[in-house]
Parts: sequence; C-alpha cells; structure tokens
Amino acid sequence: MRGVVMHAPGDVRVEDRADPAIEEPTDAVIRLAATCICGSDLWPYRGVEDAHNAPMGHEYIGWVEEVGPEVRTIKAGDFVVGSFWASDNTCEICRAGYQSRCINAVPMGMMGTQAQFARIPLADGTLVTTPEAPPADLLPSLMAASDVLGTGWFGAVAAEAGPGKTVAVVGDGAVGVLAVLAARQLGAERIIAFSRHPERQQLAREFGATDIIAERGDAGVAALKDLTNGLGAHSVVEAVGTQESMMQAVRSTRPGGHMGFVGVSHDVALPGLELFFAEIHMLGGPAPVRRFLPDLIQRIWDRQIDPGRVFDLTLPLADAAEGYRAMDERRAVKVLLTP
Amino acid sequence: MRGVVMHAPGDVRVEDRADPAIEEPTDAVIRLAATCICGSDLWPYRGVEDAHNAPMGHEYIGWVEEVGPEVRTIKAGDFVVGSFWASDNTCEICRAGYQSRCINAVPMGMMGTQAQFARIPLADGTLVTTPEAPPADLLPSLMAASDVLGTGWFGAVAAEAGPGKTVAVVGDGAVGVLAVLAARQLGAERIIAFSRHPERQQLAREFGATDIIAERGDAGVAALKDLTNGLGAHSVVEAVGTQESMMQAVRSTRPGGHMGFVGVSHDVALPGLELFFAEIHMLGGPAPVRRFLPDLIQRIWDRQIDPGRVFDLTLPLADAAEGYRAMDERRAVKVLLTP
Repeated sequence: MRGVVMHAPGDVRVEDRADPAIEEPTDAVIRLAATCICGSDLWPYRGVEDAHNAPMGHEYIGWVEEVGPEVRTIKAGDFVVGSFWASDNTCEICRAGYQSRCINAVPMGMMGTQAQFARIPLADGTLVTTPEAPPADLLPSLMAASDVLGTGWFGAVAAEAGPGKTVAVVGDGAVGVLAVLAARQLGAERIIAFSRHPERQQLAREFGATDIIAERGDAGVAALKDLTNGLGAHSVVEAVGTQESMMQAVRSTRPGGHMGFVGVSHDVALPGLELFFAEIHMLGGPAPVRRFLPDLIQRIWDRQIDPGRVFDLTLPLADAAEGYRAMDERRAVKVLLTP
Repeated sequence: MRGVVMHAPGDVRVEDRADPAIEEPTDAVIRLAATCICGSDLWPYRGVEDAHNAPMGHEYIGWVEEVGPEVRTIKAGDFVVGSFWASDNTCEICRAGYQSRCINAVPMGMMGTQAQFARIPLADGTLVTTPEAPPADLLPSLMAASDVLGTGWFGAVAAEAGPGKTVAVVGDGAVGVLAVLAARQLGAERIIAFSRHPERQQLAREFGATDIIAERGDAGVAALKDLTNGLGAHSVVEAVGTQESMMQAVRSTRPGGHMGFVGVSHDVALPGLELFFAEIHMLGGPAPVRRFLPDLIQRIWDRQIDPGRVFDLTLPLADAAEGYRAMDERRAVKVLLTP
C-alpha cells in the first residue's frame, strides 16, 4: 500500500509500505476513507520533535476489512471512526472516562494512518461504527471527530463549559475553533475567542463565538478582564501548548473557574506560587476522544454540527508533502487526505 | 495590648502594640479566646520569606467587643470563628465558594492575631458565630477550624474525597492529618497517609488513615501504586508546598483522578508535559475556609470531630517565642497560644 513517511524534518514522502495485517486477536484492519494531517505532526516536521523514517498519522475513518478472532462488536464492512489512542474501553481508567490513559493504551501514531490501510489495536474498545455507510459530504466531519473535534470537545468539557458560563478559548487552530463549537453545543452563554487571523475569527464566529480578542499574552488577559467585570472567564480552553498560551489561559480563568488544556505542552513550566493563588481547577492531557465519539457521531449524523469545516484544503494522499507544507506555512488550517 | 512581633527571622517578641479599633464601618474588634502559630509562620521565621517588625498571626477565635455601624449580623458578646482571609461573602467569587479570593479580600496576616485583640474587616462576611458561648474544652477544635482544619478540609474537597474513593495525603503536619480527618468525614473508603514520624502516623490513624507509607518522593509513589493496583489514588491532597511534595502528589494521582494542593508553594515549577500526560484534575490555593465554617463548627459542637488534637503544645501568649522555637525544631506540630 501507499503511506506517508517522514524521513527527516521537512522531508515527507508517500511511498510503498507493507500492508498491515491482523497481529493480535483483538485487532482490526481498516481501509481508510480519509485521513488527515494534525497540528501536532508539525512538531517533528519542524524538527522540534524527533522524526526519522517515521510512518505518520493518527487520525482515521474508514471501512473495516478484517477483524481478529477475538473481536466481538466490529465486523468487516462496518464504517468506523476511532480515536488517536487505541483503548480497551473496559479497564478502570477507561470506565472512568479517560480512555487516552487506558492501562492498555496504544498510540495510533505508531500505526501511521496517513495511508491506504491501517491496523487498529483493541478494535472493540477503540472503534465506533456509524449508523450506516455515511454520505460523502459527512466524511470531513467524521474525520474531524477522530481527533480535533474530540480534543476541542474535551477541552470544553474539562473547562466545564455550560449554561450560564462565559468561556474563553486560547488558540485559533482547528482544535481551538472546535472548542468554540463544543462550548456552543454545551450551552455556554458567552464564548470569547482569542484570534488575530481574520479568516479564523470568522470561522470561530460561525461556530458560536460571541466575542473576539485579537491581543494575546497579558494584553489579551487584560482585554478579557475588561469583558468579564474584571473577574476572568468561568471556563478557559487552552489549545496551543506554549508557555505564553498556558499562562494566558491560567490568567484568563477567574478564581474557582475551570481551565481545560489540550495543546501538547512544549517547554512549559508552570510557576507553583502563581498557580496556587490563581485558585483555579485545571484538567488537561491527551483527549479521551473515545468517551465522546458516540455522541459526536450522532450530532454529525443529525447534521447538528459541521466540524469538517476546519478542513480548508483537501488533497490526494499522494500529495501529502504539499499538505504538510501548506500547514507549516499557515496556508491551511487543516488538511484532509483522500487515500 | 500585648501582641507578637517578628523583628527579624528567628527573633519573635511579645510586646505592647496599639489596641485595635474600628476603622471601617464594616469592621469588628474581637477579644481573642485563643490564637495559634501556623506552619506558614515558620517561612519568615526561617528567613525563607521576608519579615521585619511584622505583627504575626492570622488565626483567631474570640468574643466580639465592638462592631462598626454597618455590621448587621454580628454583635458585641458573640463568640466567633473566622478565617485567615476576611471576605465580604457577597461578591460573585464568594458566592461561588471561593471566599479566599473575594474581590474585597483582606489577608488577616496584616492584622496580627497573635495578640489580645484584633480588628476583623468585613465582619458580616468573615465571622461565623457559635451556637452559644463554647465550653473550654471545645476551644482548641474551634481554633483549628480557623485555618488548619478548614485548609485540610478544602484539600480533601478539592481532591473530591468521598465514598468509594482511595485518598492519599502528602504531608503529615497539622493540615495533612486534618485532611485525613476530612477524608474520613467525607466518606472515603481508604485513606493512605504518607508519614515517617511515629507520633504523626498515630494521629493520622486515629483521624481515619487506613494505611501509612513511610517512604517519600518516587519511592513513596511506588509504594502507593503497590497499594492501588498500579493505578494511583483517586484523590490526593498535597499539604507541604515543595517541588518534591507536589510531584509526589501529581504522580500519586491516577489518570482522571483529583489532586487538591493546599501547601503554600515555595520554589515550585510544574513541568507542563508531565502534567499534560498525568491527565489529572488539579485545584489548589488558599483555602476558602469561610465556605466550610458553618458545617465545621457544627461538627465540632456536636463532638463529631476533635481537630483540636493537632495542638500538642499550649502556651500563654507571653511565651510565643518558645512556641515558634518548638515548632521550628519539630518538638511540636502546632502551638496554641492563650492571650
């Protein structure tokens, strides 16, 4: 099959890779209907993280080709959506809703889903089927559910976005704008998006943002305080992962409020005394997307949400290198690849 | 009146200070029935924090002598307990339960309650009356409610201690052992205290600890994992405030679990990536003791709890310097002063 391999930072190629096969009795093999490039794929692309002959990709939707002998609930021919962590969905941690920290978790990045086929470990726990074969126009939204929608949703849930709440979102990438969408769906009263890119401001507004703040860092915090009676937001979602964005999120949260952080941390150190006096609830980490998938798929199926709009460039898998370039150069927010 | 003044690190004296008077119409002046020395008073005593001719003390119980013209619910002759933050108890932050971050909060440390009398700002919001004049044997427990019990209680609440939960407590000072008591009162199933001092282990057991771990740091974490199926505790209270204790608490919390941190941070920096992958809820800060005071006073009044047992040395106010020495040299866990 054909699949994406990153040979070194900046060097992405689509080449022949071995066809995946059932290795464990709990595996499935899927034929991808779509895959995509994640903001987090840019870290190795830019040399911030190590990459050396690495198969790429951890987001996936597609048709089940074959299942192992112990798979019970998934069968060949099903159309499935899965998360970027394979999980058994039965352990104590999964049952508490933290499938991304399943005691048997497998990172899907190891599988390299930017390809024509992929092996999915722990298929029963990991994969969620759609009601029937999806119409083509729903594929981008189902694709988004695999990671960016589920991650933005977790950020909003972790920040306890809901009725009566003022929610602020730090970060206007795909995850950030989808956290706006999630906050709206969860019933937030007011949603403030930090963004200085006009087209992302526009998307945030269409997803439900009521206010936009173009400033960032402490100037952004000051602008937010002006909008919130000096108190800060009840709920803040952090969707970047830098020191500046984390501190902006901490300082934007009112005492007793909730901050959900879903940007993968890079060189972040949180000062203990400031966190202490901030007196805020914090929860972050790799999103347990599996917890939310049945609900998200249903909302997409019912055309209640349209998260696939975050894909502003669609390319054939063969052109993945151009997709990486477009995201690296900020010509695209998020790139869908069709195998 | 007589009151404690710290002239410099290690130099504590009891001397004449001006009698406090009503300064704001919302003030009360109280005559102290008891006051005490806090673990946090040792930071300036040891020169870790600045101290220069500072009146000391922020814990207090006593009789109301006089109230300002705008005080409505408190009157002369009442016996009252208050927290170490004066708060209006009416602002949006107070009403959400975070009175220690009241928009009009006043730190009681400024008042120097290790004295015969003290001015209490925002008396209506800050002070809670006892049902009647308390019997002498309840004074130590009511005194504990002013800070260490309320702080341990907040730690347990922030860690979501409750039925079915395994709770671990890092720190065996007064706050730590009272977090054990709180976890027991809140219905926790299993309570693991980290302690290597036999007399504190004993007190923790009497307050409700079911298990003791003598190791600390990563060895302590490993011992805790052994007791919890490899997963860590559902709820962890941190009651020290150092880098080691904070990381011990983070690493002792299972994914999806809750950590409450109430030790005042000193030179703590939390690594972002480890926090991200820990995937735990965190909440900490100066305890909003006012939220809990009515309930805590009632539990003490009903003799359901006996938190006053953390005071293992009682001295007249005149001997405050010996009290500081005893706590600094770990000859006492916590010292009660009688004015």
